[in-house]
Amino acid sequence: MAKTKRVWLFREGNATMRDQLGGKGANLAEMTNIGLPVPPGLIITTDTCNQYINLGEKIPNGLMEEVKIALSDVELAIGKKLGDPSNPLLVSVRSGAKFSMPGMMDTILNLGLNDEITDALVKITKNPRFVYDSYRRFLMMFSDVALSTPSNKLSKHHFEELFNNLKNELGVKDDLEVDIDNLKELINRYKAHILKETGKAFPQDVYEQLKLSIEAVFKSWNNERAKVYRKREKISDSLGTAVSIQSMVFGNMGKDSGTGVAFTRNPATGDNKVFGEYLMNAQGEDVVAGVRTPVPISKLASKIPVIYQEFQNICKKLETHYKDMQDIEFTIEHGKLYILQCRNGKRSGIAAVKIAVDMVHEKLIDKTVALMRIDPEQLNQCLHPIIAQSNNYTVIATGLPAGPGAATGLAVFDANRAARLGKGGKGQRVILIRADTSPDDLKGMLASEGVLTERGGMTSHAALVARGFGIPTIAGCSSIKVDIDKRQLTINNITIKEGDPISLNGSTGEVIDGTVEVVDPALTSEFTELMNWADAARKLGVRANADTPEDVSLAIKFGAEGIGLCRTEHMFFASDRRPIVQDMILANTDVQRKIELDKLLVFQRKDFKDIFMTLNGRPATIRLIDPPLHEFLPNLEVLIEEVATIKAKGNHDKQKEDLLNKVRSIHEVNPMMGLRGCRLSIVFPEIVEMQTRAIFEGAIEAMKSGTKVRPEIMIPLVGDVNELKWVRIKLEKIAKQVIESSSYSIPYAFGTMIEVPRAALTAKAIAEHADFFSFGTNDLTQMTFGFSRDDSDRFFKTYLDKKILDEDPFETIDQLGVGQLMKLAVENGRSVNSKLKLGICGEHGGEPKSITFCHNIGLDYVSCSPYRVPIARLAAAQANL
Amino acid sequence: MAKTKRVWLFREGNATMRDQLGGKGANLAEMTNIGLPVPPGLIITTDTCNQYINLGEKIPNGLMEEVKIALSDVELAIGKKLGDPSNPLLVSVRSGAKFSMPGMMDTILNLGLNDEITDALVKITKNPRFVYDSYRRFLMMFSDVALSTPSNKLSKHHFEELFNNLKNELGVKDDLEVDIDNLKELINRYKAHILKETGKAFPQDVYEQLKLSIEAVFKSWNNERAKVYRKREKISDSLGTAVSIQSMVFGNMGKDSGTGVAFTRNPATGDNKVFGEYLMNAQGEDVVAGVRTPVPISKLASKIPVIYQEFQNICKKLETHYKDMQDIEFTIEHGKLYILQCRNGKRSGIAAVKIAVDMVHEKLIDKTVALMRIDPEQLNQCLHPIIAQSNNYTVIATGLPAGPGAATGLAVFDANRAARLGKGGKGQRVILIRADTSPDDLKGMLASEGVLTERGGMTSHAALVARGFGIPTIAGCSSIKVDIDKRQLTINNITIKEGDPISLNGSTGEVIDGTVEVVDPALTSEFTELMNWADAARKLGVRANADTPEDVSLAIKFGAEGIGLCRTEHMFFASDRRPIVQDMILANTDVQRKIELDKLLVFQRKDFKDIFMTLNGRPATIRLIDPPLHEFLPNLEVLIEEVATIKAKGNHDKQKEDLLNKVRSIHEVNPMMGLRGCRLSIVFPEIVEMQTRAIFEGAIEAMKSGTKVRPEIMIPLVGDVNELKWVRIKLEKIAKQVIESSSYSIPYAFGTMIEVPRAALTAKAIAEHADFFSFGTNDLTQMTFGFSRDDSDRFFKTYLDKKILDEDPFETIDQLGVGQLMKLAVENGRSVNSKLKLGICGEHGGEPKSITFCHNIGLDYVSCSPYRVPIARLAAAQANL
Repeated sequence: MAKTKRVWLFREGNATMRDQLGGKGANLAEMTNIGLPVPPGLIITTDTCNQYINLGEKIPNGLMEEVKIALSDVELAIGKKLGDPSNPLLVSVRSGAKFSMPGMMDTILNLGLNDEITDALVKITKNPRFVYDSYRRFLMMFSDVALSTPSNKLSKHHFEELFNNLKNELGVKDDLEVDIDNLKELINRYKAHILKETGKAFPQDVYEQLKLSIEAVFKSWNNERAKVYRKREKISDSLGTAVSIQSMVFGNMGKDSGTGVAFTRNPATGDNKVFGEYLMNAQGEDVVAGVRTPVPISKLASKIPVIYQEFQNICKKLETHYKDMQDIEFTIEHGKLYILQCRNGKRSGIAAVKIAVDMVHEKLIDKTVALMRIDPEQLNQCLHPIIAQSNNYTVIATGLPAGPGAATGLAVFDANRAARLGKGGKGQRVILIRADTSPDDLKGMLASEGVLTERGGMTSHAALVARGFGIPTIAGCSSIKVDIDKRQLTINNITIKEGDPISLNGSTGEVIDGTVEVVDPALTSEFTELMNWADAARKLGVRANADTPEDVSLAIKFGAEGIGLCRTEHMFFASDRRPIVQDMILANTDVQRKIELDKLLVFQRKDFKDIFMTLNGRPATIRLIDPPLHEFLPNLEVLIEEVATIKAKGNHDKQKEDLLNKVRSIHEVNPMMGLRGCRLSIVFPEIVEMQTRAIFEGAIEAMKSGTKVRPEIMIPLVGDVNELKWVRIKLEKIAKQVIESSSYSIPYAFGTMIEVPRAALTAKAIAEHADFFSFGTNDLTQMTFGFSRDDSDRFFKTYLDKKILDEDPFETIDQLGVGQLMKLAVENGRSVNSKLKLGICGEHGGEPKSITFCHNIGLDYVSCSPYRVPIARLAAAQANL
Repeated sequence: MAKTKRVWLFREGNATMRDQLGGKGANLAEMTNIGLPVPPGLIITTDTCNQYINLGEKIPNGLMEEVKIALSDVELAIGKKLGDPSNPLLVSVRSGAKFSMPGMMDTILNLGLNDEITDALVKITKNPRFVYDSYRRFLMMFSDVALSTPSNKLSKHHFEELFNNLKNELGVKDDLEVDIDNLKELINRYKAHILKETGKAFPQDVYEQLKLSIEAVFKSWNNERAKVYRKREKISDSLGTAVSIQSMVFGNMGKDSGTGVAFTRNPATGDNKVFGEYLMNAQGEDVVAGVRTPVPISKLASKIPVIYQEFQNICKKLETHYKDMQDIEFTIEHGKLYILQCRNGKRSGIAAVKIAVDMVHEKLIDKTVALMRIDPEQLNQCLHPIIAQSNNYTVIATGLPAGPGAATGLAVFDANRAARLGKGGKGQRVILIRADTSPDDLKGMLASEGVLTERGGMTSHAALVARGFGIPTIAGCSSIKVDIDKRQLTINNITIKEGDPISLNGSTGEVIDGTVEVVDPALTSEFTELMNWADAARKLGVRANADTPEDVSLAIKFGAEGIGLCRTEHMFFASDRRPIVQDMILANTDVQRKIELDKLLVFQRKDFKDIFMTLNGRPATIRLIDPPLHEFLPNLEVLIEEVATIKAKGNHDKQKEDLLNKVRSIHEVNPMMGLRGCRLSIVFPEIVEMQTRAIFEGAIEAMKSGTKVRPEIMIPLVGDVNELKWVRIKLEKIAKQVIESSSYSIPYAFGTMIEVPRAALTAKAIAEHADFFSFGTNDLTQMTFGFSRDDSDRFFKTYLDKKILDEDPFETIDQLGVGQLMKLAVENGRSVNSKLKLGICGEHGGEPKSITFCHNIGLDYVSCSPYRVPIARLAAAQANL
């Protein structure tokens, strides 16, 4: 019975047997079976590992005999024999679980060496250095893995110490300076050390070596780091590891030997050409260690054309078989090519897209496979400026990748200076560096190539603005210390002063010392083709969050079908409007307030006209003013300081004192839960009345220019249906007035954000008065958890470290809590209003896992920042496939 | 058929016919039928009113004939006839809907007067002033009600103007100075005015008068103020009003006539003795107007013993019939007693308790009726200090009744001064007056008799502290302007300076100029008896929120069965601990922090020991530290100002600057959703570890003194089960250590507050690790609505004014939203943990409507401030009855 078979030859297994043979073993078997030149070997099943553990770490009866029988098959195939001095076989003993656990468990190479075999091999290979060095390494590795315990001194570094002692005695530094005799001396010292620490001699019996190594691999399933890894990755402890025993081949056997690593296609660009490197007369380690410089694989064509052609054929065969780009390790021993490993190759986003699309054209895979194969997050690399491949650079710190893309420029430590020097100012490339950012910094942020902050999480002000406006940003880079007074930042010993060049990779969070070359990625034809397939495959609509015609234009370029969130207050922050907004807020009379509102009306009408023109008939969900008014006023703490300073000096500034009093009077303890959103509209309806007028007057102006318009007015922060009713009645009246006074008819809708838990809980009542719901999952998450985004970085790291939360709910929707409310709102809302349009406009709208959830609960669309639109299109397609 | 009968004689109806006869009519019918001397009359049904309206305001066919037939029955009974000069009947025409709408609709008195009847009556009564004055009043009232339109000048004040003109001409001021001839002249001028404004003479035909009056009452159902009132009170517009037509009797017919108002028992004390006032030879208006001083009803016994005895009998009869204390209007006409109205009498809380308990003893009602009859809120008056009844005082402003009870003292405008002068200081009686309060003011608040704030709602800091500590408090008194710099407050023209006497009635929100006598109410035997009945009738447990042994003691006195919320951080605010807490927070090293925590351990151990001793075996739910740490530190804004001032003067204060930096570094944008509750315990576990140690060490000390203890440790602000698990594991270890190192065994429990929406949504998971849930409905309401209590008064008034919310969700549980979450948590929690104990410790735990809800969803107990414990006991009983 297959079930009780504990030892499998490679040729007996296949790729489907991961459960029993482990991932690596199943793959070796598969390659063997499709006729690749894999050094033969055998695999002990994962069940056997569990048997071993359940027996209290005892080799099950008969196992070694079964291994020996299988091994004799291997010996026959390769023509060598374990422990036979005349033609000795060496093997590797490796772990391999069902799921990859890289580096967590143990491996032993060159097993089969002993004193006698070593001497014999010297004669056969005529390469004493190779042989003695291999023996030395085997002694060390075997001891480390199979003999080392907490109470003895047999781990790797103890052997390295012995080697160092010897080199010191000899007065040399490099391993290669140690001559053959001294290598032999070292081997003797290693063996003596093993005897001393274990009380037993190093086993010369190769089968004893094999048994101990198998046991060591079994045991390594339960070592501490493997257990921790499994817990983190949620891999069951009961799976066990397989053990593969494979005959060794050597690339360092002479000039007709070599070793290399290759990808079947270019992993950076996706070009359909084998890409890789090799070294003749070398071992894998040599390629990695960088002692010698590897040669591009294309050179092999002229050097050993037969092998090159064989390798090309194998690559083709592997791709045809696995239907994906492969990452291959190979060795040439005495002119014979061996494939040691193959696996799906890691690749850049750009390569992922090209390879997937090319493979569809090559009929290797179908479109569905192509769409499913690409991690949507990878598309980021296709959309944002990147650091040119040729660059070498020094990463000095790593923060949160808050706004993707690369940026390079001169360090500037205040927003005003950034605005003066940067885009829109003197046109220099500047990087704004702050402890954290506030709405006051917006102008400076927009003028900068990139933004770096010491504090704040992925959803801090800086991060939100960054993603909204596509500014490369690194937030929460807590290892830097920003000193605003001294205008410098320090990281350990490095100090970057104002004016020093600095670069950011906002896609990875890397802060780079000095300048790098930043290049714009082109949207390739493959990218466009893939996106078209995604659009055909998805049900969920994809809109963008965009507040300016420029953003809208970018969003459309990236395939947005409309605007899901246009934040009207962002228009208020612009430098030509903010003074008017301030005057409006500070107005002492209704007349004065009206004057300022009329000025704003002119601006906003133009804003909306331009947005409608750019959208060219696509729908636009326009959110009425949301933030508390104090966000538009100067900072309270700064004002207190200024007024105190003026007073202490015996001076008097009536205007500033009045301003302080006003700012203080509207200051809030918890502004996030204060007078904002529709509450503001109910207490001060004038502002949203102006906005509504601006929207519809702008719409009519756009229609006069021949454009269709589809305004959807969104009333934020509704928690009770009466709020929506009250505001809607007031505003719809204005809408109708404006429309009736024109000769146009405008299809419009009124709806609300669902961002307060109570809105979700009472969605049935609200849906009767709303044409649409848009889930504002940022605030909904804040209130459902009671986490203030502005403050949660004070405890969030601890929460993630201690695994109190598995994921940041501001990054991916918390399905258990927030998602439960969303589901409730969808079901209850649709139950009373079947035409209710449902979308999401929180940051989650661009996050693949959240998009899948939105698809599953039946939303009509997601909306995200323009740069994430392609990601959302792909994720939406995947959700539907 | 009863259904089509439109006109009912009093004797034909009864109290059950409120739908058709209106409340007043049904009651008149009932009194008539139980044989009381009610002046006879008839009622036109509410359906007839609707018929009138549906016919487009036309009197239905045949109605007046039916009225006439009924009227002839009335005429027969009273021996007078409408329009008959020889023995004229006068009638009143009154509105009366099913539900009382006081003053909203119209009434006409003395109908039946015309020129001829007036002259005849003068002869009959020999009282020309009475007759002509009645005629004058009738002309005015009839015109105002039946003839007045927006376009004519027939409303009451036009007639008063004519009267004033006449008095000016005569050079007199008082009505009584106008002689009979001039009264006749006035009547002529009134009639001329009516002719001028309507183009028709005043109808001398008494039936025409009657018809117009009936129509006027019908129409008044739909006047503006009635419609607004119905909308507010949620009374259906389709009910219509009945019209009662009742023969008039006169108390001003001479020395054998009189009029009065009485209660069957004392409405202030509940004493079982008729209580009221009367005037001989007078009309109801005279009693009200205060021109003559009414006489206590007891005097009637000696003046007209027969009538007095008859009245006593009637009172008895009414109480026996209605089984409640009655408020009665009566008139004596020529020595005959008439009862004009009776209704359940309004009474004080103290009276309500006494009357209900007495009536049970008198076997008039059973205990259930007694319990159901008392509004739990009324008990407030039995528990808090009150203003002595004898006081006359001037109310200068009214704010929110935030902390019940009366207080009197000298105005003080800062908390430190209050602490210095007040309780615990110089022992003066002071009233602390602030724009608003912060935790910094606590010491001053505790030293004050009462607290008055300009800002803040019923759940502001001041209000919460006030109710917690039983300090009479008025919050959000926006009509006063507090000027802290000048140390004074102004209300319109009144200025109260520091040191001026001022008084507060925190039960009503009244601010009183000067000193009043404040007395302590005693807990009467009736109160105790009622409470015992309540305890027997309720299922819901009642605990108290109490943080000190004094509060615990008070709570037990008021019948609490344990402590539902002991806020451990309140212990940190005391003046001898706060410096230690500050040092602990500001500590730069773990060693220093440990030193400060060890100091706090000594304090808290003693706190808990004392609390356990006072509880004497009752359970105590002890909440671990909840607020963000910055609440214990000096105010950021004050510090900024101080440091700026020091710097501007060229000085330097390193310590203060360091403090500022620390306070700034832990300042939060939204502290309510920041690093507090269990988040604090996870980031800085040392504090709660100390608290847990203190609880269990204190418990053991209490046990050594022979007391049983039942500590329940509550972990606040849990939103995810992992938070609870993490903290519980850590703390339970300490609990076990402490217990094991003693020779005692302590039954303890660990649980959590459900105050974050996500906790309610994921209650199933949380319940597996909790022994109890306690709903923290204050925070749960804040987060479910996204309302910050500290800020919501900025829009809350507007919300209530515009009826966007019907009720303040911080006062009574929002059943639709917050209640839905509670229900979910109860059901899901119990589904996995049947032993889960469920309670509520938010402010709502003391609010009757919320208590009913808690009963209905199956909570085990409610917990509220000590002073509300009796209210909760009664409300819990009512919920179960």
